[in-house]
Amino acid sequence: RISWISDIIVVVSPENIETMKTIIQKYGHKRVTVVKGGITRHRSIFNGLKVFAENEFSKYLLQKPEVVVIHDAVRPFVEEDILLEVVMAAKEHGAAGAICPLVSTVIASSADGCLDHSLERARYRASEMPQAFLFDIIYQAYQQCTDYDLDYGTECLHLALKYGKTKAKLIEGTADLWKVTYKRDLYAAESIIKDNLSQQIGVITDVKEDVVQVGLLLHESLKSRIKVEAISISLCQNDSHVQNMFSGRCYNFIYIHDKQPAFQETRLLVDMLEKSNITLLYPVILISVHLNSSENISFSIGMEELTRIKKFAREVKKKNIWVYDLLIHYK
Amino acid sequence: RISWISDIIVVVSPENIETMKTIIQKYGHKRVTVVKGGITRHRSIFNGLKVFAENEFSKYLLQKPEVVVIHDAVRPFVEEDILLEVVMAAKEHGAAGAICPLVSTVIASSADGCLDHSLERARYRASEMPQAFLFDIIYQAYQQCTDYDLDYGTECLHLALKYGKTKAKLIEGTADLWKVTYKRDLYAAESIIKDNLSQQIGVITDVKEDVVQVGLLLHESLKSRIKVEAISISLCQNDSHVQNMFSGRCYNFIYIHDKQPAFQETRLLVDMLEKSNITLLYPVILISVHLNSSENISFSIGMEELTRIKKFAREVKKKNIWVYDLLIHYK
Repeated sequence: RISWISDIIVVVSPENIETMKTIIQKYGHKRVTVVKGGITRHRSIFNGLKVFAENEFSKYLLQKPEVVVIHDAVRPFVEEDILLEVVMAAKEHGAAGAICPLVSTVIASSADGCLDHSLERARYRASEMPQAFLFDIIYQAYQQCTDYDLDYGTECLHLALKYGKTKAKLIEGTADLWKVTYKRDLYAAESIIKDNLSQQIGVITDVKEDVVQVGLLLHESLKSRIKVEAISISLCQNDSHVQNMFSGRCYNFIYIHDKQPAFQETRLLVDMLEKSNITLLYPVILISVHLNSSENISFSIGMEELTRIKKFAREVKKKNIWVYDLLIHYK
Repeated sequence: RISWISDIIVVVSPENIETMKTIIQKYGHKRVTVVKGGITRHRSIFNGLKVFAENEFSKYLLQKPEVVVIHDAVRPFVEEDILLEVVMAAKEHGAAGAICPLVSTVIASSADGCLDHSLERARYRASEMPQAFLFDIIYQAYQQCTDYDLDYGTECLHLALKYGKTKAKLIEGTADLWKVTYKRDLYAAESIIKDNLSQQIGVITDVKEDVVQVGLLLHESLKSRIKVEAISISLCQNDSHVQNMFSGRCYNFIYIHDKQPAFQETRLLVDMLEKSNITLLYPVILISVHLNSSENISFSIGMEELTRIKKFAREVKKKNIWVYDLLIHYK
């Protein structure tokens, strides 16, 4: 997804390595190397870093990067903006990490389970991910770590400070960087995905005057609420405008036309969607709207036609594309 | 809901006082006094405490309690267990509060936005709610507070320590005590409510042998997954077994019978549900299952009967009761 990242190391517990390899293949992820994790967070990260530095650790020694980003899989909503920010700050400061405000006050307890002291909430932050480091700084820090650090530590920025004398730059992150920890967080994550998927819509109209007009009106009425991209086009295979639209982050499309039926065109759009690979990650919605303003043309759809549309919709659903047909008759 | 709580003070921002009073009336909450909030957390809590101590602050001076519990409305999932625990600990130690493990490492930043130091995660905890105090300790602490405390402080346990020389006992809370802060937390909260509502089912069967047998089999097959309560009974108004079942935390009921139709009985159950007041907070599901094993009796339901059932279901839905009718024919 992000072109300036040259390699991605996924550190996985031994029992899940095969599953991870299957996932990588299924979704066609590139630039990914899978590495066996250790028994603690720090030992796993160290294993990941070794791929760039130690010949015996991996079949393929990857080229040592200038900057390395460390991220948790439990924070699935990381945007390119924040990645770029931490990387640029790491280049300048040697280390950088995302932070968020504390939601609750943090307290220290004494040995007898009573309050020892509480921290002033405004002076502290929650350390989140992603973090970025000059490779040499973090790798040398891990090489100097004690077993205690590796077994009980949780904070990479701390290692860069302790062993690399590097004060990490702290970058304000977004609330979406929170850690998916409890069962309730899965529901929260689902809601964010659904929210993201419904942020944008693509409107495709054919070139007939009436239809273009309807497309423009739809654009007008939707644009205050969601991002709308609209094109008017005579559909053909390999159309670059449509391909562009299908390669973005849009998962909802409306195709407006005055053909009855627009079976060929819908099939063409479905083919192009499939080739664009956006259906791999999330379901794509395609609503084919047939406008009929003529009083002469018969409005009804025959049973045969209906069965054909239904069958087609059922088939393409397996490809993660949900096709809906709308017939709108107006005077 | 909890009988040993004598008074509940709800502190609300001035613009929301009327809304809060409407809510209290609508849901029939008892023992509740609404108090105007201040501009900060501590000022609001102080206002709440004054109701027990200062005659001029409220029309009705409430009797001063031995122990006071302080809780946040943003933590809606507080169980009686944890309330009791903090109250008992407060009686013994003078102050007590719920804590949870830290999810992220906490760090301190220096003035230039860089890492100053990070805290060892295992030694610190997130301070959550509820908290409980001997009334005199927390009230006197608030009376001694500086304006700085009142404007910038966030931690009641800290005030009890600073001004009351009281080291609060810390009680491990459940994960559900988290603070509903972000939009995603609303989805998480919804999932917890749905989860809680589907934990328990009540099975009511009439006294016919076959039907009792089906009820027992249903009980057997469900009990490994959810809590099942089952009774066999000839339905009548004021039946104490059914009333008991309706006054618990169960929101899902199955009524199995061999009458056709069981319209009178369903109406009776709906009436009893309505009187029990459990429909005020959450929707109640009532599935009326008609078992028909006889080959002689006609299986079909007439259109008139169907319309009547549908109409009835639509009506009681307004009362937050969802009625479903099932007709099962077997040989």
